[in-house]
Amino acid sequence: MNHVYFFDEGQADWKDLLGGKGANLCEMTRLGLPVPPGFTITTDACRAYHTNNTVPDTLWDEVRTQLQRLERETAKRLGDAHDPLLVSVRSGAKFSMPGMMDTILNLGLNDHAVEGLAQQSGNPRFAYDAYRRLIQMYGDVVQNVPKHEFEEALDDLKDARGVQNDVDLTAADLRELVDTFKGLYRDGTGHDFPQDPWAQLQGAVLAVFQSWGNRRAVTYRRLNNIPDSLGTAVNVQAMVFGNLGDDSGTGVGFTRNPSTGDKEPFGEFLINAQGEDVVAGIRTPQPLSALERLLPEAHRQLIDTTQGLERHLRDLQDFEFTVERGKLYMLQTRNGKRTAQAAVKVAVDLANEGLITRQEAVTRVDPEALNQLLHPRLKPGHGTAPLTKGLPASPGAATGIVVFTADEAAELGETQDVILVTPETSPEDIHGLAAARGILTARGGMTSHAAVVARGMGKPAVVGAEALRIDRKAGTMAIGDTIVRRGDTLTLDGALGEIYAGAIPTEQPEVSGQLEDLLAWAAETARAGVRANADTPEDARRAREFGAVGIGLCRTEHMFFGEDRIRWVRQMILAHDEHEEQEALTHLLHAQREDFRGILDAMDGLPVTIRLLDPPLHEFLPSLEELAVRVAVAEARGEHTDAAHADRALLSRVRAMHETNPMMGLRGIRLGLTRPAITRMQVRAIAEATATLEREGRAPKPEIMIPLVGTADELAQARAQVEVVLEEVRAEQHATLDIPIGTMIEIPRACVTAGEIAQYADFFSFGTNDLTQLTFGYSRDDAQGKFIPQYLQAGILKHDPFATLDTEGVGALVRMAVQAGRRTNPNLKLGICGEHGGDPASVRFFHDVGLDYVSCSPFRVPIARLAAAQANVDAVQHTTR
Amino acid sequence: MNHVYFFDEGQADWKDLLGGKGANLCEMTRLGLPVPPGFTITTDACRAYHTNNTVPDTLWDEVRTQLQRLERETAKRLGDAHDPLLVSVRSGAKFSMPGMMDTILNLGLNDHAVEGLAQQSGNPRFAYDAYRRLIQMYGDVVQNVPKHEFEEALDDLKDARGVQNDVDLTAADLRELVDTFKGLYRDGTGHDFPQDPWAQLQGAVLAVFQSWGNRRAVTYRRLNNIPDSLGTAVNVQAMVFGNLGDDSGTGVGFTRNPSTGDKEPFGEFLINAQGEDVVAGIRTPQPLSALERLLPEAHRQLIDTTQGLERHLRDLQDFEFTVERGKLYMLQTRNGKRTAQAAVKVAVDLANEGLITRQEAVTRVDPEALNQLLHPRLKPGHGTAPLTKGLPASPGAATGIVVFTADEAAELGETQDVILVTPETSPEDIHGLAAARGILTARGGMTSHAAVVARGMGKPAVVGAEALRIDRKAGTMAIGDTIVRRGDTLTLDGALGEIYAGAIPTEQPEVSGQLEDLLAWAAETARAGVRANADTPEDARRAREFGAVGIGLCRTEHMFFGEDRIRWVRQMILAHDEHEEQEALTHLLHAQREDFRGILDAMDGLPVTIRLLDPPLHEFLPSLEELAVRVAVAEARGEHTDAAHADRALLSRVRAMHETNPMMGLRGIRLGLTRPAITRMQVRAIAEATATLEREGRAPKPEIMIPLVGTADELAQARAQVEVVLEEVRAEQHATLDIPIGTMIEIPRACVTAGEIAQYADFFSFGTNDLTQLTFGYSRDDAQGKFIPQYLQAGILKHDPFATLDTEGVGALVRMAVQAGRRTNPNLKLGICGEHGGDPASVRFFHDVGLDYVSCSPFRVPIARLAAAQANVDAVQHTTR
Repeated sequence: MNHVYFFDEGQADWKDLLGGKGANLCEMTRLGLPVPPGFTITTDACRAYHTNNTVPDTLWDEVRTQLQRLERETAKRLGDAHDPLLVSVRSGAKFSMPGMMDTILNLGLNDHAVEGLAQQSGNPRFAYDAYRRLIQMYGDVVQNVPKHEFEEALDDLKDARGVQNDVDLTAADLRELVDTFKGLYRDGTGHDFPQDPWAQLQGAVLAVFQSWGNRRAVTYRRLNNIPDSLGTAVNVQAMVFGNLGDDSGTGVGFTRNPSTGDKEPFGEFLINAQGEDVVAGIRTPQPLSALERLLPEAHRQLIDTTQGLERHLRDLQDFEFTVERGKLYMLQTRNGKRTAQAAVKVAVDLANEGLITRQEAVTRVDPEALNQLLHPRLKPGHGTAPLTKGLPASPGAATGIVVFTADEAAELGETQDVILVTPETSPEDIHGLAAARGILTARGGMTSHAAVVARGMGKPAVVGAEALRIDRKAGTMAIGDTIVRRGDTLTLDGALGEIYAGAIPTEQPEVSGQLEDLLAWAAETARAGVRANADTPEDARRAREFGAVGIGLCRTEHMFFGEDRIRWVRQMILAHDEHEEQEALTHLLHAQREDFRGILDAMDGLPVTIRLLDPPLHEFLPSLEELAVRVAVAEARGEHTDAAHADRALLSRVRAMHETNPMMGLRGIRLGLTRPAITRMQVRAIAEATATLEREGRAPKPEIMIPLVGTADELAQARAQVEVVLEEVRAEQHATLDIPIGTMIEIPRACVTAGEIAQYADFFSFGTNDLTQLTFGYSRDDAQGKFIPQYLQAGILKHDPFATLDTEGVGALVRMAVQAGRRTNPNLKLGICGEHGGDPASVRFFHDVGLDYVSCSPFRVPIARLAAAQANVDAVQHTTR
Repeated sequence: MNHVYFFDEGQADWKDLLGGKGANLCEMTRLGLPVPPGFTITTDACRAYHTNNTVPDTLWDEVRTQLQRLERETAKRLGDAHDPLLVSVRSGAKFSMPGMMDTILNLGLNDHAVEGLAQQSGNPRFAYDAYRRLIQMYGDVVQNVPKHEFEEALDDLKDARGVQNDVDLTAADLRELVDTFKGLYRDGTGHDFPQDPWAQLQGAVLAVFQSWGNRRAVTYRRLNNIPDSLGTAVNVQAMVFGNLGDDSGTGVGFTRNPSTGDKEPFGEFLINAQGEDVVAGIRTPQPLSALERLLPEAHRQLIDTTQGLERHLRDLQDFEFTVERGKLYMLQTRNGKRTAQAAVKVAVDLANEGLITRQEAVTRVDPEALNQLLHPRLKPGHGTAPLTKGLPASPGAATGIVVFTADEAAELGETQDVILVTPETSPEDIHGLAAARGILTARGGMTSHAAVVARGMGKPAVVGAEALRIDRKAGTMAIGDTIVRRGDTLTLDGALGEIYAGAIPTEQPEVSGQLEDLLAWAAETARAGVRANADTPEDARRAREFGAVGIGLCRTEHMFFGEDRIRWVRQMILAHDEHEEQEALTHLLHAQREDFRGILDAMDGLPVTIRLLDPPLHEFLPSLEELAVRVAVAEARGEHTDAAHADRALLSRVRAMHETNPMMGLRGIRLGLTRPAITRMQVRAIAEATATLEREGRAPKPEIMIPLVGTADELAQARAQVEVVLEEVRAEQHATLDIPIGTMIEIPRACVTAGEIAQYADFFSFGTNDLTQLTFGYSRDDAQGKFIPQYLQAGILKHDPFATLDTEGVGALVRMAVQAGRRTNPNLKLGICGEHGGDPASVRFFHDVGLDYVSCSPFRVPIARLAAAQANVDAVQHTTR
């Protein structure tokens, strides 16, 4: 197997072997573009080096052979005293890791060759500058001589000469600097700077190999999910120089604008400069358009070349070039990184230009990036430093005055923009969450109650901001030394998790018509449909606007927390006799009928999956601790008021209903079967709302979903219960009521016995939140704050399993259930309605196991639509990786 | 297919088709024993009747044919006016359901035949008595004429005649009674008693079919796990009469004593009586031995016959017989029910007599029955009524004085026998549980904390006694109107769940040498070994006595609650700095080293699986509610004491550690990985204890078990942690420390990914308690009180899944893990250490999936040993069903 390829021996799709840069240099060479010649040492060689701690046996022979060819082609020799070949040695992994690994330029210079270069270029200053740069880079990269020592020596020299800029140093100055640098090198390493160019080359190649393992490279890979096992290639390429005078220069550019996606070349360059100078930012570069004026021929050639490259590689290109004495050289091209907005525009434009298919266009945008486009954001360049950071729980920017309780938020939120700041939230705070512009909590993770509700509402939220010290009584919050008072103004950036004092200007990003085009193409491409999780007519309308093809999860319990309902809910729970219970149920029946009518009407013609009551009833009552404290304090004070008596009575009820692990307690179908009156009320409300709409000529399509089923017999009995009520209403109202009845699959046992359960289900909807909790044995509320972060850091978990589905464990159970369910009932409809429905990686999995739809928060519907389409495209090319 | 078999056409092993009684009548007939002739209508016919609501087409033809044969063989005819044939019509299902279904005797009598019978028997009184009995039974069973109407008429007649007993009525009286009964029959049904014997027979057969579905039969089947689908057979048999004079009689007996198992015929009989009279208990029967004197020939024949039957059927027989004018008839034989003690003795004796093999002997005892033999019990016949009942959580009888708190129990328990009565218990009560003679709780299920701990300690307990109203402050408990005060004496029967006022005498059952023999044979037969769950040297010794081959689960946390330890545990948890933590850990290291040394020493040479700390740390701290109340009350009172300050500080720590669902929170390996100092301390304690014992020439065999593993990486990291400490101690003490490291499999994800996890495990121990909780999504503490009872009643659950393993769901996951684990690591040792380890049905499952051992409470070790042996015997014959 070869370990070294000359640039005309490789091609663009050999990125695994040659790295991205190497493969693209090969491709450009094969296309006959003006690329300085060179060769690439493969990633295999790097991997072998890391495995064996030594390079493959034949490596240096191969390098020597290719070097000889390079010398023949350039008619120059490394280290030659008259016309020396200079090479660059650069890393280049499969995925771009900008700035993470090392580069050495001007390699091949020594005390003799520098004279040849001076002579050949007619520019001794340039030659000595090149030599001192080599010594500095080589010392730093290969030998770990501290960089700052070289920089200080340069500064000392400038001070001594009384000049400001490097360019003001003379050739003689630089020759002196070379001597100084050689001294620093000797002091730092104990030996002289190597005069043998071959030794230089070997040292440089090994240094690049080693740089694959340096700390910043490892960190970058971890952050970007790049496997450590890939290794880097090494590119050895003849140097060209943009700093040989005013007919030379160097620059970088994009074939289209990477911020906006506009179809116009975009970039900048410096006359008489090397690449480093562009990056260093010492001189201000000129826009690419200026090149046309200064070097029109080079400019014309550059535009032709890069447009050709874009056509050939079928994507926006990010390129580097050098002009050496009027001659253009291409040094690099690659698919360019771009903003979400540009990603959408470029993908749609390329498709419209016929360069790619619409299906390809759909695959070109990272679904997660759409998040940026769907929410207001802080105006770029506002320049304010955040007070602190928390977890970016729900994107978008919000400014408002601070309140510390849900009640305040509900009260003040009617007339003002408020930010609700609270240690954490619970279902009882729903009115405050609904009224707030933004939500900030001190505790909780990405799927805490506040986070889930905020995302569901498409409302900015920052959670788990641990630096917050909230004192509700005092009405203040401390962040370090800063004190924020009730009524002070605060701004949240939910996309970044940042918290700012005062008001920061925000802007509504323009969602261009291209996004609509792209999502329409996605809909043509996707197999699995996307529904939304929505509990109100308003959410339902929003979901529909975002292109949801139905509601996959309508949580009825959220309707119970309304101020006008909670008292009837409590009466229903605590009823002393049938009369009290019936009275409460009658009120709730009326309220729920209106709820369902609103949602079914908003989704007219589209399916709405309504989940029967799921949470334990004690969630609707005051907390045990709160009540116990109140009762104890009243007793300590000797209070004998009616309220105190009522509290005492309530406490004993709450205590009796208390559960050690409510997540696994009396809820879902267990509640439905042990308190059937609640189920009957809910089913009747659904049925009556449906019948009314049917009479009005509408097309309501409810589906009744029974939560938390663990055994087939549970579902059989619950289904019978539901059917009795449907039959009653059918008879009473002469209605059709063709309402499918299905179940959530969210308990491991339901996955294992799905074949039995499917006998009684028209559909399965995987509740992957609870299924993840039970499969891992992780209480979401507890785990996210307590050990998941540590597990992620220690590499025990690759992802937060509540954000991205654990395909190996939870996914295996889902697959098992899909297969067994379909075996029993080939018409079984299959969907998923956990948080994972809006996560692109998870959507791909759900597509692969054959689900019919995913359901997610309304604001994530576009993301899921794109992800679902991508999952259905076989050959996926992520351009924005 | 035939639906009717004459007795010489069937055999003993056709019980499915002919029912138990029919098959045994056939068998006896085939053996040439004196059985009155007859035939059996199959269970198939009954099933067909229940399915189609009508009998199979050919049934009555077949019955008629067999009846004709019966008439030929007896030379009598049904309804004959001179020498009538009388038959009995009796149910007989596969499994005996005594008294649950219906029987009709003397069928075939009518107004003519009764005269023939009078003439033939020379006993008109007998004939009219038989006729009036037929009308009564037929009216009751076939036509639902209330039985009491007949009984009242009989009583009226006796009053009118001024006599006490039936026998004092004359033939004329009985003839008059026949007329009265016929009138009652007519009044009740609207038509006359059928004079056509064929119509009588059809009616009786259908009535028996129907009685399979009567309420008491259905209830009995439910209680005894007999499938409703089996159906009953019907036996039609020529009547013989034990009431034809003093040379006649009837009786029942056993070939051996069913209470003690002693090898001597045991039974009783009545001279001049019918079977009903024996059952009715109006006359006092005589012991069987008296028969020898009265009817020596019949007695000799009976003994010979039944001994022969026992030899032939190879088990203790329960038989019925009638002597008609000196001639013996056998009416029934079956394997006799017996006490646990008798079951053991009979099985061992039969094996020693060579009638059965030792392996068969092992299968002849219901493992669950051994429970009776291993605990003290109330003296039979004490005659006291219980105050109330609860759940029979832990068998055994206990008498003591009542205390209401664990502290009181600990204090008074040193000098007196105390019964701890409390709403429920928690790990903090462990000292009180240990000190009490018996435990009584108002709440909780069969696997509540109190129940589990009590069974573990082999201590009587009754839990979930809902009638209890405990008032701790007043120091009283009310059960209905009865008030029990602190210090009053109470007796518990843990095997029955009964609670008695005062002291009831108890007795220590004698465990005969036969039990030891049987268990020794079981050990020879079993493939899977039985270990015990034990946390103390004392438990370990007891487990060893009961034949445990190791400790399968040693819970280290139970050691943390000792009075001398809890303060260090709390200091460790709440430590403000490393010094405080280290100090606490050092104390705990010393304590734990002694703990482990004691247990390893007690189990010298046998494996001891030590589980590292499992529960969440907050379990060792005061409860959040209690503390919140204390702090609030102190604040309300304006207290500013040091204690109040300390409480406030502790509250904020406890609140920070609080978990919504602690079962799924920061515990087990999650704790070990996030607070590694605790793991290091425990492993060091184990290693040092082992090294010390090794030096002393002992053979300690610890195994380190890591709980709650959900991913392979967790175990990999935890294993590395453990190995580092073992290596340290190995080096320090020059010890061998050959200590296997394994994991509990108790999380569904661990089952699904067991193949990966097995890479890092020397053994798996299935923690089926937690696995059941997570697979079902049932919090054990919450579910058992709240909905499991309702689910059992509604038939949604067939068993409490915490008592008997759910093979369909949890079992499927266990099987999956066993297979995947063994594929990865063929040497993987597999066991189970949940409560299910002591449940015979579950043990069978664990055997079938191939586990190497089960582990259970010490007191259940003999039960598990027997169950394990039975599981290994292919053809199992449960004789004691």
